[in-house]
Amino acid sequence: MPTTAATPFDRAEALPAGDRALSGITIVDLTQFEAGPSCTQMLGWLGAEVIKIEPPGKGEQGRRASTEDPDTDSVYFMLLNANKRSVTCNLKDERGKDLLRRLIARADVFIENFGPGVIERLGFSYEAVAAINPRVIYAQIKGFDANGPHASLLAFDNIAQAAGGSLSVTGDADGRPLTPGVNVGDTGSGLHCSVGILAALLQRERTGRGQKIEIIMQEAVINFGRILYAAQAIFGRAVPRRGNAHIMGASAPCEVYPCKGGGPNDHVLVYTSRAGNHQWHNLLKLMGREDLGDDPRFATPQLRFQHSAVIDPLIREWTLTRDKYTCMRELGEAGVPASAVIDTMELYEDPVLRAQGAFVTVEHPVRGPFTMPGCPVRMSDSPIASTAAPLLGADNARVWGGMLGLSAEQLAALRADRAI
Amino acid sequence: MPTTAATPFDRAEALPAGDRALSGITIVDLTQFEAGPSCTQMLGWLGAEVIKIEPPGKGEQGRRASTEDPDTDSVYFMLLNANKRSVTCNLKDERGKDLLRRLIARADVFIENFGPGVIERLGFSYEAVAAINPRVIYAQIKGFDANGPHASLLAFDNIAQAAGGSLSVTGDADGRPLTPGVNVGDTGSGLHCSVGILAALLQRERTGRGQKIEIIMQEAVINFGRILYAAQAIFGRAVPRRGNAHIMGASAPCEVYPCKGGGPNDHVLVYTSRAGNHQWHNLLKLMGREDLGDDPRFATPQLRFQHSAVIDPLIREWTLTRDKYTCMRELGEAGVPASAVIDTMELYEDPVLRAQGAFVTVEHPVRGPFTMPGCPVRMSDSPIASTAAPLLGADNARVWGGMLGLSAEQLAALRADRAI
Repeated sequence: MPTTAATPFDRAEALPAGDRALSGITIVDLTQFEAGPSCTQMLGWLGAEVIKIEPPGKGEQGRRASTEDPDTDSVYFMLLNANKRSVTCNLKDERGKDLLRRLIARADVFIENFGPGVIERLGFSYEAVAAINPRVIYAQIKGFDANGPHASLLAFDNIAQAAGGSLSVTGDADGRPLTPGVNVGDTGSGLHCSVGILAALLQRERTGRGQKIEIIMQEAVINFGRILYAAQAIFGRAVPRRGNAHIMGASAPCEVYPCKGGGPNDHVLVYTSRAGNHQWHNLLKLMGREDLGDDPRFATPQLRFQHSAVIDPLIREWTLTRDKYTCMRELGEAGVPASAVIDTMELYEDPVLRAQGAFVTVEHPVRGPFTMPGCPVRMSDSPIASTAAPLLGADNARVWGGMLGLSAEQLAALRADRAI
Repeated sequence: MPTTAATPFDRAEALPAGDRALSGITIVDLTQFEAGPSCTQMLGWLGAEVIKIEPPGKGEQGRRASTEDPDTDSVYFMLLNANKRSVTCNLKDERGKDLLRRLIARADVFIENFGPGVIERLGFSYEAVAAINPRVIYAQIKGFDANGPHASLLAFDNIAQAAGGSLSVTGDADGRPLTPGVNVGDTGSGLHCSVGILAALLQRERTGRGQKIEIIMQEAVINFGRILYAAQAIFGRAVPRRGNAHIMGASAPCEVYPCKGGGPNDHVLVYTSRAGNHQWHNLLKLMGREDLGDDPRFATPQLRFQHSAVIDPLIREWTLTRDKYTCMRELGEAGVPASAVIDTMELYEDPVLRAQGAFVTVEHPVRGPFTMPGCPVRMSDSPIASTAAPLLGADNARVWGGMLGLSAEQLAALRADRAI
């Protein structure tokens, strides 16, 4: 394939060829921002060939979102688009549409998360794609159900979290609703979509047919709050905000306590299970307060919850004498569930997390070495490789030339016309 | 199979037989509480035969956790164990171990989330299970890496969230770290585990081999906070808590505003994207404040963020004149991303969400009709069926009798000895 070497857009053979779980699976990826890209990044880690389809010029919207340097791709983009290839393709140009149709004919998965109605207006509805290739798994992520009152709303992570109940249960009892700092709406939907795609690929092994996968972000958020409905069933009303307390009101301690240091995250979370008293007794022993072991105010998890205002200062007195990691270690060794409140820089710099692959370093062609969270799915027979997010159109020659057979001249002409 | 009908534990053929994505996949499920059960419940929705292995007597710990009625299974348990079968099996009895080994020989997936080291001490390590059946996918969910300093710690949802950075970024800037009210640590890990299991099943179609899947809850939480590392890279320090504001400080408004009604969740979240100004101008037009369209203080998303203290009262003045759903509708129609802060009771009672299957009603043999969040993965060719969580040992006759061929007399003897 001489065209492959003839263009400066081609990358080296960075992705290793060893057999991985999704080796041989080709994904046509029209996703943007986080909900969709988090899904295809995961599938890329598992070995799929992910071909990101982007408009010529600026590329997917996430490429330049929140960047500190307008001349290169944002860190945001790099965090969500590792393990992918990038081609440009103008879907408002008939030649671009034709290239995409030809790629769909060879693909296993088609995925998009545009705003409501966009992909259908572009001519790539489920029916249109299935007509090209009935074996394709067609996946969509939308904010709300297409038949509901909110079908036309744009959904970002925080919108989906508000609509799915997450904000209503996050925050203090006397405070306003708060948005969790982790993206349950976006990455949470992306993970659900990964589940659907993989299940459909497995089903296709028997049926030979593709199908349509649909993830509604509001429903994905509801799923993360599933056990809230246990508290609601017991108390007969909407689950309230409770700070760090257990939603059932069934256990104490269950709070963050300040530790030596005084920084914003110098806290340790201490939790004792609602299943019995042994963790509470472990805690009393550790703090040298076994004298409270028979106190009737603390005889059950429920009673301890009612007397949290007495318990909390006792624990605080102990935690303030140690740093958070010492607290975590001593509590853990004593058999009390606990964790330091670890911040992003501590996670990022932790050599143990690096060694276990929780963070990986990739080599970006412009930014150089870049360290990011790795793949949180460990598979003993599917080696994980991480490659940096591709530059825009980096794989035009490989895909349009190598896979579809276009000549260098044809590519140049399409590029000149901004069709790719 | 006469034994099937001979025992009161047997259930009717509630699960429909139609072909679904995971039809024919048998899962030996030793999970407890939420992280593991949320995974197998999802796989059950997709059509797998999930056989829950529980100790005789009280069953899995989650059965009686946080219950308001000690005489029956908790709502908590029902929310996490739909679509499963239950058998009892005493893993401290050699006859129980033998039954489990015989079931493993016929299974496709083995999954557990006991505390560190427990399953290995019971004699069912990865190596032991793979020796029985090399085709089995063996899945484990643990709080922390087995080689790290926290390997022996017990991990509940909030522990994993504290350790994975989630608490450090949730809450107000001047407040303590807060736990998100949705279970990123538990259900988030369960979803990652579903992804690994499905990918391994797909790989097995080619290789004929099983493998080991491992999910570390701390890593799963880190994955949900992936884009935090973009903010950290830009600002060069740990990502702080910011209330409802955008983590990049790149956009305003991005806040919940109080609406007519005054209840704890009578708020609407309003967000305008960091990509340009058109949503801001849409908002000004809706509020009748187009006079501010040229105000230099609000000329860019970043400037608006800096002037949040001016912007917020303007918006609040408008939102307070309407209820939250009216705000949501008017903002949406005007092209401004927004959502009411919807609480769990509103979600639960919403007829539209029921109609779309976001909530489903199952029939529990003791509690009767029970409504719970449904399956958030929609597949056009894999019909979703939901059956209530099984009573303890409900499928002893079907599994030990029907699948393994034990007679009614053998079952009775095993039961009398509490081996099942």
